[in-house]
Amino acid sequence: MTAYELFYWPGIQGRGEFVRLALEEAGADYVDVARTPGGMREMMKLLRPEGGLRLAPFAPPFLRSGELVIAQTANILAWLAPRHGLVPRDEASRVAALQIELTVADAVQEAHETHHPIDVALYYEDQKREAVKRAAGFTRGRIPKFLGWLEGAIASSGGPWLLGADFSYADLSAFQLVEGLSYAFPIAMKRVTRSIPRLRDLRSRVAERPRIAAYLASDRRVPFNEDGIFRHYPALERAASAKKAKARKGR
Amino acid sequence: MTAYELFYWPGIQGRGEFVRLALEEAGADYVDVARTPGGMREMMKLLRPEGGLRLAPFAPPFLRSGELVIAQTANILAWLAPRHGLVPRDEASRVAALQIELTVADAVQEAHETHHPIDVALYYEDQKREAVKRAAGFTRGRIPKFLGWLEGAIASSGGPWLLGADFSYADLSAFQLVEGLSYAFPIAMKRVTRSIPRLRDLRSRVAERPRIAAYLASDRRVPFNEDGIFRHYPALERAASAKKAKARKGR
Repeated sequence: MTAYELFYWPGIQGRGEFVRLALEEAGADYVDVARTPGGMREMMKLLRPEGGLRLAPFAPPFLRSGELVIAQTANILAWLAPRHGLVPRDEASRVAALQIELTVADAVQEAHETHHPIDVALYYEDQKREAVKRAAGFTRGRIPKFLGWLEGAIASSGGPWLLGADFSYADLSAFQLVEGLSYAFPIAMKRVTRSIPRLRDLRSRVAERPRIAAYLASDRRVPFNEDGIFRHYPALERAASAKKAKARKGR
Repeated sequence: MTAYELFYWPGIQGRGEFVRLALEEAGADYVDVARTPGGMREMMKLLRPEGGLRLAPFAPPFLRSGELVIAQTANILAWLAPRHGLVPRDEASRVAALQIELTVADAVQEAHETHHPIDVALYYEDQKREAVKRAAGFTRGRIPKFLGWLEGAIASSGGPWLLGADFSYADLSAFQLVEGLSYAFPIAMKRVTRSIPRLRDLRSRVAERPRIAAYLASDRRVPFNEDGIFRHYPALERAASAKKAKARKGR
């Protein structure tokens, strides 16, 4: 029997990717259920209130381990990490790791809002005008703020990792945030890159970890695409850059 | 020396309120630092990367207990709760409580987005047109979905609390979510009220707990207002209701 069953939408990295990265780094025995035959049906069943769980998840991702079913990305990671050496044992480190994870999750949510600023039930095309505005504020204000905060955290900890000498799941999530933002907003990321040397170094170190490198090269890593959280819509970046150029001219 | 120092913006309930409710229910010895003389200055200092903390918070609320400084609402609560009997001791309950807390946090974030759908750095008045659209989707789609999920959780657990017979901090947060939504969107909440009898009962039970009742009647409870997360802007509800009536007519 498999140790872990991960339930997440097939075809996208999404929030499930933060859990996949932890499972891969741990070398854990897991199945990505919705990518197996019949798996989607099983996932949808468990999401229903009458699906038999003590507490149905609000949404994927969720992880099953024996009798336990855990939803909410940060909750899954905080539970999984101590079992696989993905967080130091002391209380201060665990609290710090979850604090970073939840801040990364906030950034991820805001990245999602750039293409869905009005209604998650509508298509991007139906809220594109507002998306352009939202993306402008996100790329100019929020990306530098979130990544600057991560950079500062590595600086205060002494690095090379977010918690200092000890690697943790927070580093995996910071890696994924940088990867996602680089895919979705390459121009904005180019602007910010010189101010985040420690975070860039961390990103490379994560990518070079043997299990992560093997995972990224495998077909288990779903490519980024425009159904996921990090979407590359040139219109969103063009508008943001154009607005900035215009503002500069107006000075 | 005080056991806990809570740092949060004075003058609003905001995300700090979820922590205040837990501290009050616990009967904990705490100071709401930013509401004391010089407190704001102290809070702003700790938020700076050079403020001397191992890991500066990204934003308030944060809690100091001795050497430990914890940020991110759900992280604070998950740390605080076991110390004060605000969550059962078994692993499944702790995981379930944090799962609920994080889902409530998602709903709170979406409530905030209704008045700031474009940019947190701009005023509501500068994004009012988009706010009207966002509020329509939130009141029609998301409020019923989030509250329906909480209702389902109480039903599956057997009630009267979210985890069943055991009270937890998740109940305090569900209470606060219902209070906030009732303040911000009274019309939408009236529409949904009949479908959430268990959640309404939970709300009343929390309000009647002696320490919570005393807190709500005290001046420590900041009144809801239009600087917080839950804001009552009649324009946002009017537009949502009007749109609904129009859609009904068009059938």
